[in-house]
Amino acid sequence: MAKVSSGMNYAPKGKSNLVVKKGEFAFAAMALEHGHIYGMCNGLTEAGAELKWVYDPDPKKIKAFLERFPQAKKARSEEEILDDREVKLIAAAAIPSERCALGLRVMAAGMDYFTDKTPLTSLEQLKAAKAAVKKTKKKYMCYYSERLHVESAVFAGDLIKQGAIGKVIQVVGLGPHRLGDPKTRPNWFFKKEKTGGILCDLGSHQIEQFLYYADCKDAKVVHSQVANYNHPKFPELEDFGEANLVGDNGAVHYLRVDWFTPDGLQNWGDGRSFIIGTEGFIEQRKYLNISQKNSGGNHLYLANKKGETYYSLSGKVGYPYFGQLILDCINRTENAMTQEHCFKTAELAVLVSMKAVKIK
Amino acid sequence: MAKVSSGMNYAPKGKSNLVVKKGEFAFAAMALEHGHIYGMCNGLTEAGAELKWVYDPDPKKIKAFLERFPQAKKARSEEEILDDREVKLIAAAAIPSERCALGLRVMAAGMDYFTDKTPLTSLEQLKAAKAAVKKTKKKYMCYYSERLHVESAVFAGDLIKQGAIGKVIQVVGLGPHRLGDPKTRPNWFFKKEKTGGILCDLGSHQIEQFLYYADCKDAKVVHSQVANYNHPKFPELEDFGEANLVGDNGAVHYLRVDWFTPDGLQNWGDGRSFIIGTEGFIEQRKYLNISQKNSGGNHLYLANKKGETYYSLSGKVGYPYFGQLILDCINRTENAMTQEHCFKTAELAVLVSMKAVKIK
Repeated sequence: MAKVSSGMNYAPKGKSNLVVKKGEFAFAAMALEHGHIYGMCNGLTEAGAELKWVYDPDPKKIKAFLERFPQAKKARSEEEILDDREVKLIAAAAIPSERCALGLRVMAAGMDYFTDKTPLTSLEQLKAAKAAVKKTKKKYMCYYSERLHVESAVFAGDLIKQGAIGKVIQVVGLGPHRLGDPKTRPNWFFKKEKTGGILCDLGSHQIEQFLYYADCKDAKVVHSQVANYNHPKFPELEDFGEANLVGDNGAVHYLRVDWFTPDGLQNWGDGRSFIIGTEGFIEQRKYLNISQKNSGGNHLYLANKKGETYYSLSGKVGYPYFGQLILDCINRTENAMTQEHCFKTAELAVLVSMKAVKIK
Repeated sequence: MAKVSSGMNYAPKGKSNLVVKKGEFAFAAMALEHGHIYGMCNGLTEAGAELKWVYDPDPKKIKAFLERFPQAKKARSEEEILDDREVKLIAAAAIPSERCALGLRVMAAGMDYFTDKTPLTSLEQLKAAKAAVKKTKKKYMCYYSERLHVESAVFAGDLIKQGAIGKVIQVVGLGPHRLGDPKTRPNWFFKKEKTGGILCDLGSHQIEQFLYYADCKDAKVVHSQVANYNHPKFPELEDFGEANLVGDNGAVHYLRVDWFTPDGLQNWGDGRSFIIGTEGFIEQRKYLNISQKNSGGNHLYLANKKGETYYSLSGKVGYPYFGQLILDCINRTENAMTQEHCFKTAELAVLVSMKAVKIK
């Protein structure tokens, strides 16, 4: 895993694992507001999808994108892409508050939608998205990258399914991020109405993992709070957020997200996940192993009655999500992720943000 | 640090660091219900205190104690000790719900009191303890061992005071413990009325660290919950507890305690502490470094703008609390810990337990 200064530019590359033949599945990229679009396109192209088009109103963003993906054709407008019946899926990383509106246009055009997280920022948007999915029978999928594009996170799910830690009781997710030079951030990043707030944005990753690992269909928000502890220049920025949830099966979740990764850290954030089960626990050190030089990511620690096991997983697990997503689009199945799971995560991410008590 | 099967038997030994001369400060041990009494007596004797007496109604407990501390004289009764004007301090590890009553007798006899954590289990007890301290001018101190008797925890406090991570924003305390064979536990361990519940008992360690590291005089309980996920044979046992607090300066605390340490783990619990500041963070791996053989404890990781630093601290920091406590008793100072801090921790530990929502 490459070292990157900010999670915004985290775009893992994996091995190719083609699920379709050349020309069999075309997709397009549009709305290049967040660097995650690169990871999304990496994942899809590595699984065999053909990146046919790219569009963004900002020519600079298109230019940068074409340097990484020269195979894409620059479209003159969003419409040009949405009119192309060959395109099956739109990958997009719009401003969070605009992700749903774009998704509605995409699905109305008869295409599946794959958006960066958080997939939407309000309950009204969720209602509209659900109605559109029902009406169009199209997919509104989301790039919850902190599980889907992290090999230790994929492997953790496999271990849990194999019963390595018994029944999951709690998932603790610590998601620190580096803010970096504010000048490198777009203006919308500092507007709560645009991002949905730190709990909706970064928190959605954590909630998705909780629902997945603890196998919950639903959860209740017990408590959440946010703060701006140390960024007075950006009054709408929440530099800290935390939340507690209780799943419908009684498992619990604690998440903390923040913008306090110090400059001296070797990567953009020391993301951790502690999953406790009745028979053992798993710790993930997702992006680095602190104090070990060039440690890379994907460190997983398992403890159960058999003992302690360390797994170094970079390059060893891959990212099955993308191939599954392509096949789901083709076969109208839900193996990559169910629509219900995607929307439940979105709903809870919006709720924890809406209900959050402001500390400072 | 020796490997022990259960935290109940965690009794660190340190270097001698005498603050008094022989015969200058006598103390006694009584109420040997919890193995922590050994750690308490280690700490005090290593700082020069003279262990004059021991008393417990159970001759077996006295016999075992005298094997470790042959210098102690076996008293015939509690009264025999409380009548000895040479004794300045009573160290005791009674059943939690009886700790306060013993403290009241000790202070009424004109001696200072040093109890195992949690120092008391109800607000009524707290009121009585406060009144007795006011009346007698004696001390009601507590062995919050997870900071006071852990070298990485002591060092973390020093780093914070030196400004290594800026202003503390959050303390996350994860305190898993091994239950072990229930037959090795006393009956009272399984009765909530006796222990005060997991949040009062184990949680008090975490709250104490939060108040100390974040420099709070007070805090508000935002939310707490407990569960019995997997011990139906012991219906009153809470095998899981968590709580959120907000300090009077806006710093926040999340704590989780549980009895789910799996049998294969090299030590009784993978206790962690994550302290985030405005300028960096500290992680402690207090009792082991998972997947490293015979890893010992006291691993501390610091990240700030200068980079990442690992400190292996076993045998390098010592436990200044005990010498400070002896001198506080002699000089009527509060350098080891203020009475206010000790009682505030107790109050919050009782409150998080009282207010806890039962999940399962």
